[in-house]
Amino acid sequence: MTTIHVGCDLTYSVTNPTSFLFNVAAARTPLQTISEETLQLNPSIQYEASSLGMEDIQVYRLYAEPCELQLNYRATVDLRPAINDTSQIVEAGYSQLPIDVLPYLNPSRYCESDRLAHFALQMFGNAQPGFCRVSAICDWINSNLDYQAGSSGPSTSACDVLIQRTGVCRDYAHLAIALCRALCIPARYVSGYAVSLQPPDFHGFFEAYLGSRWYLFDATHMAPVEGLVRIGTGRDAADASFATIIGSATLTHMAVWAEQTSPNPMPNQPAAVSTTD
Amino acid sequence: MTTIHVGCDLTYSVTNPTSFLFNVAAARTPLQTISEETLQLNPSIQYEASSLGMEDIQVYRLYAEPCELQLNYRATVDLRPAINDTSQIVEAGYSQLPIDVLPYLNPSRYCESDRLAHFALQMFGNAQPGFCRVSAICDWINSNLDYQAGSSGPSTSACDVLIQRTGVCRDYAHLAIALCRALCIPARYVSGYAVSLQPPDFHGFFEAYLGSRWYLFDATHMAPVEGLVRIGTGRDAADASFATIIGSATLTHMAVWAEQTSPNPMPNQPAAVSTTD
Amino acid sequence: MTTIHVGCDLTYSVTNPTSFLFNVAAARTPLQTISEETLQLNPSIQYEASSLGMEDIQVYRLYAEPCELQLNYRATVDLRPAINDTSQIVEAGYSQLPIDVLPYLNPSRYCESDRLAHFALQMFGNAQPGFCRVSAICDWINSNLDYQAGSSGPSTSACDVLIQRTGVCRDYAHLAIALCRALCIPARYVSGYAVSLQPPDFHGFFEAYLGSRWYLFDATHMAPVEGLVRIGTGRDAADASFATIIGSATLTHMAVWAEQTSPNPMPNQPAAVSTTD
Amino acid sequence: MTTIHVGCDLTYSVTNPTSFLFNVAAARTPLQTISEETLQLNPSIQYEASSLGMEDIQVYRLYAEPCELQLNYRATVDLRPAINDTSQIVEAGYSQLPIDVLPYLNPSRYCESDRLAHFALQMFGNAQPGFCRVSAICDWINSNLDYQAGSSGPSTSACDVLIQRTGVCRDYAHLAIALCRALCIPARYVSGYAVSLQPPDFHGFFEAYLGSRWYLFDATHMAPVEGLVRIGTGRDAADASFATIIGSATLTHMAVWAEQTSPNPMPNQPAAVSTTD
Repeated sequence: MTTIHVGCDLTYSVTNPTSFLFNVAAARTPLQTISEETLQLNPSIQYEASSLGMEDIQVYRLYAEPCELQLNYRATVDLRPAINDTSQIVEAGYSQLPIDVLPYLNPSRYCESDRLAHFALQMFGNAQPGFCRVSAICDWINSNLDYQAGSSGPSTSACDVLIQRTGVCRDYAHLAIALCRALCIPARYVSGYAVSLQPPDFHGFFEAYLGSRWYLFDATHMAPVEGLVRIGTGRDAADASFATIIGSATLTHMAVWAEQTSPNPMPNQPAAVSTTD
Repeated sequence: MTTIHVGCDLTYSVTNPTSFLFNVAAARTPLQTISEETLQLNPSIQYEASSLGMEDIQVYRLYAEPCELQLNYRATVDLRPAINDTSQIVEAGYSQLPIDVLPYLNPSRYCESDRLAHFALQMFGNAQPGFCRVSAICDWINSNLDYQAGSSGPSTSACDVLIQRTGVCRDYAHLAIALCRALCIPARYVSGYAVSLQPPDFHGFFEAYLGSRWYLFDATHMAPVEGLVRIGTGRDAADASFATIIGSATLTHMAVWAEQTSPNPMPNQPAAVSTTD
Repeated sequence: MTTIHVGCDLTYSVTNPTSFLFNVAAARTPLQTISEETLQLNPSIQYEASSLGMEDIQVYRLYAEPCELQLNYRATVDLRPAINDTSQIVEAGYSQLPIDVLPYLNPSRYCESDRLAHFALQMFGNAQPGFCRVSAICDWINSNLDYQAGSSGPSTSACDVLIQRTGVCRDYAHLAIALCRALCIPARYVSGYAVSLQPPDFHGFFEAYLGSRWYLFDATHMAPVEGLVRIGTGRDAADASFATIIGSATLTHMAVWAEQTSPNPMPNQPAAVSTTD
Repeated sequence: MTTIHVGCDLTYSVTNPTSFLFNVAAARTPLQTISEETLQLNPSIQYEASSLGMEDIQVYRLYAEPCELQLNYRATVDLRPAINDTSQIVEAGYSQLPIDVLPYLNPSRYCESDRLAHFALQMFGNAQPGFCRVSAICDWINSNLDYQAGSSGPSTSACDVLIQRTGVCRDYAHLAIALCRALCIPARYVSGYAVSLQPPDFHGFFEAYLGSRWYLFDATHMAPVEGLVRIGTGRDAADASFATIIGSATLTHMAVWAEQTSPNPMPNQPAAVSTTD
């Protein structure tokens, strides 16, 4: 078990009545449990806590009049990831995939897998199927993109990234997801807190469905997947914004952290890590 | 109640072992019930019938060796749509929207609402909110696009359509969905059988979430929404293909129909029609 | 005759050996003559002055070692525009167009006229041909775009602008050019100095070939075409950058101006203005 | 000297009064001369023969009433290409480039070199500069694209091709041109007749400016550059259509050929070939 303290402080200048949907809370799964969790709002506005979608993302919805709004979230998260030998993990045939996994084969806003079919087959069609192939995709992306803060924007998609060859974590994840789907491997976006991420920030990574479960991958190689605390899950980043804002508000301060307190159980060699059923 | 006989005959030339996912069965909702339904496959391959996603789409999955594969689907569908006075239907505020409706505000593969925010506000920001505004969107699309079979392809998106000004039913629906979402009105794609559609084919239309339910719209104005039999529902057409093919198969014959047998209860004036809860 | 004093001061921090091509000098045409002109470089690097292309754009090319490079350009320009009655200006048929004008019917990097054929015909196909139609295009663009500094970038094209509905002067010109070409009206980009432009900057406008000459238009309506001093001409902004930089240099200071000193001969009513043969 | 007989037969069904611009005539350069040339039109419509642009493309312009229009072009072309040792051909520095070559560094409609800067540097930045580097670009394109008739259309650009990885000759040329320009190597599109091309058709290839002249390249590797007879030259295919049609006409028959009659002087090993000054 790994115990990780995560949290964020967000401050907004709200200039008109504004609705917020925050997706900053650690998700609850059989393999990712939460021993302590607090949410503070200042002013202490009433909020609605709900779980959203088939992955039960925890979201907070609230409505604020003009003010300076502070949100402080803290949680202690216990991870008991399923760790498997990568060499044993194969790709499930289309007929074997659980029915609820199938939508993660479809193209989405930022992952145009339909346009990348030929390229994916050309580059990774002969790679060894299974965990290996998804790792090969991550390695290729890591070698061929340059991580540049500010080089992409809210409308940048996997195809854009493949052209411009620069991006940030969400772009790396989008391209990986698109290539997996193009090869008939279900893949989805995961937002989260990441131990050791520099500079500290929310992180975007992805999961591929292999064998009979979802495995974590981080094409940026910036944070070990053993130290990733899942927040939201979705088709792509469009489903996992940490804040959706309907109205008029400006982020004026942001701090995010993830600190591992238990002795480091992180393996020295690559392992397949899953934190959902 | 309206009773509609729907069905389709599909023939494929399968040249390699191929997996199929068919999404041709009429959906089951409290307002759309099915009194008779048959699926025939020739050769009589074993298939798996499942319901997929939060909208319980009915799908058939099967695996075929090389052959000529025929699928024949027939159903008798009873529609008891909720019909409301359009003038009474308002837009729900973001805070009032059911949590499971929120993903239908996000941009998707073929509906880039993020890129259309300014345009949507410019064109429809001053329209009367509610059913009216969605109708205005449909009317604008209908007036400004030309319906041309073959003018769009599998990668054509709402933005492409707005540039090229031509498309088919799925393109009309995609543009309408994108504009609704850009205005903070949840919207989703619906595939179905449509009475009176000429030439007969599967149809693509959409639903907007207004007041406290999903209402049907058809921006093509090619078929009355009272005669639409829902098949699949999703973020956009990527979620509602009538056939997903993993392998190698060619469609060699296709017939689709929808015939209303009961006396025509279709209203003469515009009404708001809903066939889901 | 209108006399206009134009000029610019540019300062670059050059951090590696760098080649520059400056396109800041007022063009020389029978209708735009130059009575005084100075170029100062500090340090006083040797430069090559050439005229480029079929429109004889005046460019300065130079090579700088790392330094702080200052360029100061000043000119006194006399404009004797051909001014015609807009109502008399018709569109030339394709067979009547001079052969060297034909390339300005082709799509270019930022003016994808090939994709806008249907839209252009739909919107402006029934407008009165001639000067009127180009004015109608400018008016429509002016009404339907919002001028927002920073809303577009170096890769933003006419189609992007038509989607996003915001842009700056070069975007307005690109969309107008694309629509003209789609209607078989030759059109080209012009960069220049503009009297009364606020805030002062280089300006981007365009010319359409009507009757038997090129007429000036400014879809932004931000500066009178009678006060435009032409610098560069080309297919689109790609051909008319005020500075092309091959190496490593950062613009640290920029001032641009255009001041009319003669009494104001600008007409009160719309006129067709041409400053090239 | 190589002598090549080229020609084409084109038949159009003209259904409305239509203007044509044909660009099928072999160009005349000091290294590509024409000993015999005939153009026949049936019906024998009057046409205007002009030379267009800085490259003196030979074009025929004509206006046809509704009819069946046949064009028959034949020419005997003598090529005396400058053939140089590839290893001696270097890249000219920006400061050394002739001023009229500079526009061929700018992005164009189908060659978005501005978007490919990072990719080009990443892939070819370390290649040996000169003829070698352009050959490396051609080889990479040849290895990474699949030639598929019908896989691209009139709006397909270099970036589209880099995503979809399929295309035809014009797409190969566009991607090569865009990559050259992104590396500061002037490049332009050339249309022509090609000996040994299968199936026979007009061909699209490109030229890069190296050392002090334009050298021919064919990224498709489908025809030897020694057997290419130049027709048109331009920024990209937008400037070199074999037929521009303003009106309403359908191509109903087309035959194109290029036959070398002299003994084969084609070198066995790669050589740098130039057919313009």
